[in-house]
Amino acid sequence: VTAVPAGEFEVIARIQQRLRGEGGSDAALRAPEAGEVFSGDDTAVVSPGPSDRLLLAIDLVVEDVHVDLALASLADMGWKAVSVNASDIAAMGGRPLHVVVGVAAPPSTDLDAITDGMVEACAAYGIALVGGDLTGGRNVVISVAITGTCDGRPPVLRSGARPGDVIWVTGPLGASAAGLALLQGPGGLDSAGDTDARVAAYRRPVARVAEGIAAATAGATAMIDVSDGLSRDLDHIARQSGVGIRLESLPVVEGATAAEALGGGEDYELVFTASVDAGVAEAFRAAGLRAPIEIGTCSDDGEERTLQGQPLAVTGWEHRFGAASA
Amino acid sequence: VTAVPAGEFEVIARIQQRLRGEGGSDAALRAPEAGEVFSGDDTAVVSPGPSDRLLLAIDLVVEDVHVDLALASLADMGWKAVSVNASDIAAMGGRPLHVVVGVAAPPSTDLDAITDGMVEACAAYGIALVGGDLTGGRNVVISVAITGTCDGRPPVLRSGARPGDVIWVTGPLGASAAGLALLQGPGGLDSAGDTDARVAAYRRPVARVAEGIAAATAGATAMIDVSDGLSRDLDHIARQSGVGIRLESLPVVEGATAAEALGGGEDYELVFTASVDAGVAEAFRAAGLRAPIEIGTCSDDGEERTLQGQPLAVTGWEHRFGAASA
Repeated sequence: VTAVPAGEFEVIARIQQRLRGEGGSDAALRAPEAGEVFSGDDTAVVSPGPSDRLLLAIDLVVEDVHVDLALASLADMGWKAVSVNASDIAAMGGRPLHVVVGVAAPPSTDLDAITDGMVEACAAYGIALVGGDLTGGRNVVISVAITGTCDGRPPVLRSGARPGDVIWVTGPLGASAAGLALLQGPGGLDSAGDTDARVAAYRRPVARVAEGIAAATAGATAMIDVSDGLSRDLDHIARQSGVGIRLESLPVVEGATAAEALGGGEDYELVFTASVDAGVAEAFRAAGLRAPIEIGTCSDDGEERTLQGQPLAVTGWEHRFGAASA
Repeated sequence: VTAVPAGEFEVIARIQQRLRGEGGSDAALRAPEAGEVFSGDDTAVVSPGPSDRLLLAIDLVVEDVHVDLALASLADMGWKAVSVNASDIAAMGGRPLHVVVGVAAPPSTDLDAITDGMVEACAAYGIALVGGDLTGGRNVVISVAITGTCDGRPPVLRSGARPGDVIWVTGPLGASAAGLALLQGPGGLDSAGDTDARVAAYRRPVARVAEGIAAATAGATAMIDVSDGLSRDLDHIARQSGVGIRLESLPVVEGATAAEALGGGEDYELVFTASVDAGVAEAFRAAGLRAPIEIGTCSDDGEERTLQGQPLAVTGWEHRFGAASA
């Protein structure tokens, strides 16, 4: 393997060729429609669709903060940067449309590997990768901004849960944290192997787009993706809806701990609320999706945070900052 | 000045309060309309307007790459991150609508200062700051993604210039590079002062949004913003349009060199082409804008790059990368 120094414009040209499907392998990526312009101008020109509302979000994935490049590849990092954004769209009950991608990276970085992962993820979610920016940087920072549409449905906010609503989660939790612990543990990479589902959950998290749409269609009243940890993410719904959280069960993936399921985060399952008579299970079955799991109810005590009657601590990931004040 | 450690959610809550105008001073920022949701959910929900086409771009501003924090403040960096994105919209002849902002920063970073600069810029351009992401990082990276609209006009691409078109620039060039040189030179900060227009151009570049709309309205055939340097940015138009570039004059700001005007970049003036009979000067006058400057013509020799008959080297900024290959 030799390092071939390449200028920004040469790298961008190669990525653009791939996005146009000229390599042959990326044909799954959507091509521009009439009137659309993807990469190659000052901005992309995209069709936002017939809805009069657009979903818009941005999420960063930072080397050594979100991804340890000794434990995951640059392609994994590219995949993850797209997936965490798609997950934000999913948590509104929306369908992702376009991403623009910013990458800051040291000169030695294999940008094609990052592109590989991003292209794979965009193809998996049916997202058009329409533009980007490439710059030097001290460590690898991937910034993805995403648009999406609810196709005329109202977006499912965090603030709509009502007392008595059932709390659902789209799958068992803790896989990503358990996968990371496995990779960091004795034997580490060697013993974990590339086929462990928990390791895959850490390296290649999957946004639950179809599940979010099924939940919205069934009348979900509030929804969020489990990125910071179930207890913290439910706390967001509780605060913004003015309801309490009364969990009856905690679905934990095989090989993970309850602490990993509650506070590990980065699972990217969706947690949502719906009235007891909403046909949630039926909607998921009709869509051919794995059955969602009922984990509790919303109470009318806005301060309540309990799991099987015991106080539930709000744990999970939070970045720390020192803000200067006079 | 004491450092007050603050969690991500506390910092975000404070920024959200400011964006809602609760501090009182940021009332210039646009508030959400009915059906819109800004910061505080998984994504923002915005109105893309009646046009069936949306402009979408992303640009990163990285400490030590684009901004030397010994020579410019964090507020300047926040301003710049919004301005360079607004400039991309301006270069399409568009009007900026919304930004989402991602910030990666070390724990000691004064995030309020970054917010100050971003809010000032958004207010100046009439942009709604609708959401963001905040994370730890090794150095300060600000990533802004922007939407915009051409209000039904076709976007002005880089590819539409035709032989015989006149080349215009919205103002003299080289100010930013000269400002940086001044700050780095003998005496540096002390001698430069805070009132030097070149220093201001380096620290607080202004996107030429009204000028871009005037150019588009007058029938500009191709347009780009001068970010990498005039010669390189004109080279983009030449290649994508299949025309040559024949410059007759080079407008240089007072106190800058010709080299700074040609290759310095980061001026964020717009360079555009239009047919000789387009009413460019009239359109700018009617809009109450500074007169644009005619600097040359497009030739039918796609290889030509000349200034007053002499070969014009393509110089300017390009990030260097080493791409690994087998």
